[in-house]
Formats: sequence, structure tokens, C-alpha cells
Amino acid sequence: MQKTKVAIVGMGTVGTGVARLLLDHGDRTARHAGQTLWLEQVVVRDVRRPRQVELPAGLLTDDLRRVTGNPEIKVVAQLIGGLEPARTIMLRLLESGKDVVTANKALLAEHGGELFDRARELGRSIAFEASVAGGIPIITNISQCLSANQITSLRGILNGTSNFIVTQMEEQGMDYALALAEAQRRGYAEADPTMDVDGTDAAQKLSILAHLAFGARVHWRDIPRTGINSLDPADLRYARELGYRVKLLAIAHLTDSGLELHVSPTLVKRGQPLAEVREAYNAVSVVGDAVGRVFFHGLGAGQMPTASAVVADLIDTVVGRTGITFRTLELWSQRPPLVNMRDHAELPGRFYWRFTVDDQPGVLGRIAGALGNQAISIASLIQHEPDELGDRTAVPLVIMTHTTTEGAAQQAMRDIERLPGVRPGCVRMRVLD
Amino acid sequence: MQKTKVAIVGMGTVGTGVARLLLDHGDRTARHAGQTLWLEQVVVRDVRRPRQVELPAGLLTDDLRRVTGNPEIKVVAQLIGGLEPARTIMLRLLESGKDVVTANKALLAEHGGELFDRARELGRSIAFEASVAGGIPIITNISQCLSANQITSLRGILNGTSNFIVTQMEEQGMDYALALAEAQRRGYAEADPTMDVDGTDAAQKLSILAHLAFGARVHWRDIPRTGINSLDPADLRYARELGYRVKLLAIAHLTDSGLELHVSPTLVKRGQPLAEVREAYNAVSVVGDAVGRVFFHGLGAGQMPTASAVVADLIDTVVGRTGITFRTLELWSQRPPLVNMRDHAELPGRFYWRFTVDDQPGVLGRIAGALGNQAISIASLIQHEPDELGDRTAVPLVIMTHTTTEGAAQQAMRDIERLPGVRPGCVRMRVLD
Repeated sequence: MQKTKVAIVGMGTVGTGVARLLLDHGDRTARHAGQTLWLEQVVVRDVRRPRQVELPAGLLTDDLRRVTGNPEIKVVAQLIGGLEPARTIMLRLLESGKDVVTANKALLAEHGGELFDRARELGRSIAFEASVAGGIPIITNISQCLSANQITSLRGILNGTSNFIVTQMEEQGMDYALALAEAQRRGYAEADPTMDVDGTDAAQKLSILAHLAFGARVHWRDIPRTGINSLDPADLRYARELGYRVKLLAIAHLTDSGLELHVSPTLVKRGQPLAEVREAYNAVSVVGDAVGRVFFHGLGAGQMPTASAVVADLIDTVVGRTGITFRTLELWSQRPPLVNMRDHAELPGRFYWRFTVDDQPGVLGRIAGALGNQAISIASLIQHEPDELGDRTAVPLVIMTHTTTEGAAQQAMRDIERLPGVRPGCVRMRVLD
Repeated sequence: MQKTKVAIVGMGTVGTGVARLLLDHGDRTARHAGQTLWLEQVVVRDVRRPRQVELPAGLLTDDLRRVTGNPEIKVVAQLIGGLEPARTIMLRLLESGKDVVTANKALLAEHGGELFDRARELGRSIAFEASVAGGIPIITNISQCLSANQITSLRGILNGTSNFIVTQMEEQGMDYALALAEAQRRGYAEADPTMDVDGTDAAQKLSILAHLAFGARVHWRDIPRTGINSLDPADLRYARELGYRVKLLAIAHLTDSGLELHVSPTLVKRGQPLAEVREAYNAVSVVGDAVGRVFFHGLGAGQMPTASAVVADLIDTVVGRTGITFRTLELWSQRPPLVNMRDHAELPGRFYWRFTVDDQPGVLGRIAGALGNQAISIASLIQHEPDELGDRTAVPLVIMTHTTTEGAAQQAMRDIERLPGVRPGCVRMRVLD
């Protein structure tokens, strides 16, 4: 059987998983590629560090030139995280004639334009199924399987860490700090979880999907985003009382006025598939104008789910499917954008608000008046009696609105925060219709 | 832009949808294929019949030779249902040098061996994404996206007609005949619904998926199957009382003793994704040893969802991806099967039973004894008082068992049916763990 030599650069969690699949399950790659994917070289920073996978002698090296200088190695899984030296290594691999497979969405979201341009110039390809939603093959599904559609909407739970934390908060009644600690204990959150919990990671993934699905050219920094790091368990309880769960949703929605894009904690009606995504799972709900709604659910991270995506990409690259797809991808291409981003202030939406107000007459009237000034109408309202054990002079006031705009909601929020009797710390979240 | 000529044979519901996508949305196919898919010819039986899509002059013909004799037409969407003349037309298209795209799973399930052999001999390809689960791209996901995995389990709701009927029965309390009439009224069921409701259609689709995912070589007729056409609303009510919903599941499960394959109405715990699939939707839950469980949900039939899959196949074929994939597919290949089917009698499972018994002492004891003789232990039991309005001498007895085997359950069923005090018409269904 024909043998194609491949290499791995970076032996962290994912690299180790990829090596395992290639070394222990060569029959699979042979079966699906019609040829053997032969792991020829593994490049690491420190060759003496103990490894979680047994590598045949001679495979390990700390010299990238053993890969770039070996013309027999056709495809490289580049599995180093972060921006540098990942970017430089990626460029060197492309320039030495390798097709590259990567899982590094931060690198693509930041330097995708440069890297894709260079790959195109050199006639090489970059495959990146593992960069978004881990084991869910959302990249192939959007760029290949749904190609007959104009995709009109895309809603994703794209950050497993955040979803795990929110699930713990909701189901176990933990506060944010405790749920984060539990996520770290289980290996779902890193020591510095900032990028996961502040919405950055989800925004980076959404920018990649928005490029692919809509031909947008939006940098992730331009996507309005709120993370889950300021979620209060009280709001999860009120959401539950109203029949909703809170999920960190990444949303892209095509309208006549442009592409809506945002990442934010959102109330999703219980029973809806996205509301029922628990723990560290990811999910993506895509609407195409021909296919209707298609929903995908699976593990968004972890060693073997991510390795599964990387090895599928290696196979696709070796057999030639990636090269074909890469040429037609709407990803950081030189073509003009097919759609521009809609002004965030214009975004329509329903909202959940929680105000903490003095337990005095007139406050509700003033809040309702401020909402009315922005033509925001109230769909439902919860006011409980003061907490017996807490501050008995303040009461929480929870309001769900009918559809309004982001801009009107922001203005109403500013107005209400200035009202007498309204305490600091208003909470506002979007509600999925 | 380069132009590739394609043709459609058969202008039923799906063919009309495909023509619409090609004629009205050429920009999409151009964008994703890097070339225009030009609809050159449409072959129908009766050119005078009114069409639901406006076709440019000269497109319509009743002469297949206008396609087979035109070497400029590279790919043909063959969208005729049934076995003949679909099979003969498919062979003539392949023999005239065309790659073929089809949605006809009955044809593949029956004549796949012959057709795939012929396509391989001729260096042609057959694409068939639309043949299973309509708009859910399950064929590509299994044969391409999950190629790094040994797939170990596959559970699908593959027949939208059955799922629609069962949903109506469960949610509206309709009996089978009424729910079927409603499905027919809404266009979800054909005038002769036999193949859909007796499990044939799901077994045909399961045989295709089992070929692909497991390298099995099982004819659909050899897959044990039960349809939904004898479902009693009473059992849906009892299932609900026990916390389950009934779904027509197609199951393939890899074990050390071989591949379990069957289609049957099955109790699925409420809250599980498969239990929540409603109306005419399809869903497939796939477990791979690397990726874990991936769940897909979407419209399994209908004009545009199916056309979406056909046009994606046309694009894949024109750009060359299909040709690459087709060569390595484990589908009716000449290679020996990778797995054989497990003896149905050995299949493990939990079961739901309903017996109608005389309201007399001793009957329950005799039934429990018969189950005990087959080493079947009871997990839960419901016995209500006799129906005030019905036969007051008979009571329903509902039993859920712990895990046993299909063979033991069949033997117990035969023994129990012969017991004094047990009325004819015992019901038995599998329970998904």
C-alpha cells in the first residue's frame, strides 16, 4: 500500500492524541485514505520531556528543519497553541511545500489573512476542522455539505469551558468562582481561563464560521461579546422560573441590513435543543434556506475528539479533498466581502433585565416609564418579596421585554441606572426567540 | 467562469427542487464549485405535464439519449424512484460516461452491489447523500468527517413519516389510522404508506449506513424490523407514565460478537436527544471511539432539504471530491466484510411488555414465573384497576425488564401467551438504555 509521510509539530494534549491515532490505528487511515499515513517525525521543544504516548525511536526531534528539509513529508499537523512561534512555524511549513492541518483558532482568527494568502500563493492548503467545535465537523458541514444553501442563521455553543461552568452554576447552585474552580479541577478550564470565560474564544470561532458561512470579513475583535464571568446565580434561578436556561451563545444572523454577530449569555427556552446542551458539550444550529434547520451536538474539546478532527483533516489533505475545498473557501479570500456587519445598536432582540430596587412605592413606575421612553414594552415581570435573610430594604425586579433594539435597550439601561431608588448593578441579557 | 453541464432525470418533488436551486441560485454553486453548474437537460416521461418550476426552452425531453449521447454533460442527478426503470437508467448513464447523483435508497439497498461494481469498472462515481436522512449530511459525516474513528454505535430516526405519525399519536392522542390519515393529508405519507410504516424504508437506510460505517455487507431484508403500524396509543401512554417516548429506531451497534442491527419501535428515556425528535424530523446519533457521541438533527425528507443534499453532491462530484471519496468507500465493495451480523437471538436488551390479563388471582404469579424461567428479571411493573368504561374483567399489566436477550424474551413471550388468564395480543418493545 502506498505510504504518505506526515509529521506533527507540537506534542501537547492534541498532538499526543493525533500520534496515538496514527500509530495505533493505521488500519483506519489506510482504509479511508487508500494509503498509509506514516508518522515520520514529531517536532517538540524539549525531546527529553516524558511523553504520554510511546514513540518509535528517531521520531522525536527539536529541529523543525528535520520536517521542512524533508521533501518526503507532505502534510504536517501543526498543533502549537498561541500566536508565536505558531505563526512563524506555519509560514515556514507552507514555504517548505507542506500542506498544513491545524487546531489553532486563535492563530487563524488573528493571522488568518496572512496565512491563507501565503498558502494560496504557494499552492498549498490549510485545513482547520479542529479549530471550531472540536469533534463536531462543523467546518466541513458548512463549507461542503450545505453548499447548496444560503445560510441565514448560525447559533452555537462554542466554548465548552463556559458551558460547563454555567451548567454547574445552574444545576448545582454553585457561584461562578466555585464552578470555575470545579472546571479547572476537571481539566475543562486552564489556569488562566480569561479567553474562555470572557467570550474571546467563542468570538474567534464565530469569526471563522462567519467568514465561511456568510463570506463576511470580520475580525473577532469587532464582534460585540460578553462572557459568563460576571453571571450571578440569581439570574440563572430567575431564568429557570421563567422557563429558560442561560447559555453563552455565539450568533450570526443574516438580515437585509447586514450580518448580526455577537457573543453573549442568552436566555434559551427550555426544551429547545440549544438549551439542553450540558457540561462541556458544544452544539451548533444552522439554518440554510433549502435544508432548513440542522443541529449538531458533540464534544467541543478534549484530546481525542480534537484529534479525531485533525486526523480526518490529514486524511482529507492526503487524498486531495482539502486542496479542492481550500480553493473555493470564502475564508480570508481576496474577494470582496459578501456581507457587512450590521450596526450593533440596530440589532433587534428581546431582553431579560434584573434591577435591584428600593422597596418603596413609585420605583416600578419610574422604570416602566424609562422603558416606555425607549418604546420598550414589558412582556413579563417578576417581583418577589424582600429576601428575609438579606437586605430587607431592597427587592429584585425581573423584567422580560418584547422585541426592541440593542441601542434602545442600552439607552434605557443608562436612564434606569440614574433613577432614584435603583441600586447599582443592573443585569441585562438577550433572550432567544 | 468555467461551465460544467449537468442534467436531471426525473422531475418529481426532488427533481423540481434541484432544478430550482440550479436555475435560481447559480451564484451559490459557482461560489462553492469555482465553476457554473449549467443545467443542460431535464429528462421526463411526459414533456407535456405541467411543471412547478419554469424551465428554459429546450431543456425538457423524454429522450434519455439526449443525455447519454451528449458528452458535454458530465454529471446527472438521477431522481427517479422505485427499482425499474431507475436501475436500467442508472446503468445507461454510467455506461455513457456520466457520474451519477441519486436520492434513491431503495435502488441502492436492492441493487447497490451491481451499480457500484459497474461504476468502479467504468471509473465513474455514484453520490447518494440524499438517500439517507435527507437534509442531514450523514453520509459525508460518516464516510469523511469521522474517518479517524472506529464507529461503535449508530442510532437513527430515519423515517420521517413514522416519526410524524408517532408524534401525533403521542401528543394528540390519535390512534394509528387517524395519525396516518393526518400524515397523508400533510403530504408526509404516500397513498400506499407500507414501506414507510412497516420499517422497510428505515431498514434500507440502515443497511446503507451499516455498509459505510462498519464495512458490513448486510442486505436490508436480513435486518430484523418491526414498524409502527401496529402501535397502540395505550402503549404510548404507559411509556409516558414510565418516563419514556416511543420512537422507531434504526440501530447498529458493534460488539465483540458481531454487528447488532435492527429496526423497531423503542422506548427512549425522555430528555435524551433522540426522544425529543418530533414531527417529520430525522436524527442520527453516532458514537466513534475517538470523537465520542455526535448527534445530528434535521429534516429527513421534503423537496428542498433533499434537493440541498443532491446539489451538494453535484458540486462535490463536479469539483472532484466525490471521485476521491468513492474510491475508498466501504460500500458494496469487493473487499470481504469487516464485520458480520450478530445472531438476532443473542441481542441483549431491556424490554417493555404489556399483557392483557384476566382480573383474577394467580395470573401475575404465572407471568412472573414464565419470565423467571428465562432468567428475565422485572425492573418495574404497572397494574392499574380495570377500565371503568371498558372490559371490567380484564386488566393491563405493564412490565419493564432488566437486560436479557432477544431470544429469551421471544421464548418467554411464547410461554406467556399460552398461560391461562392471559388474553391474546401481548405487546413487546425494546427499551434504549
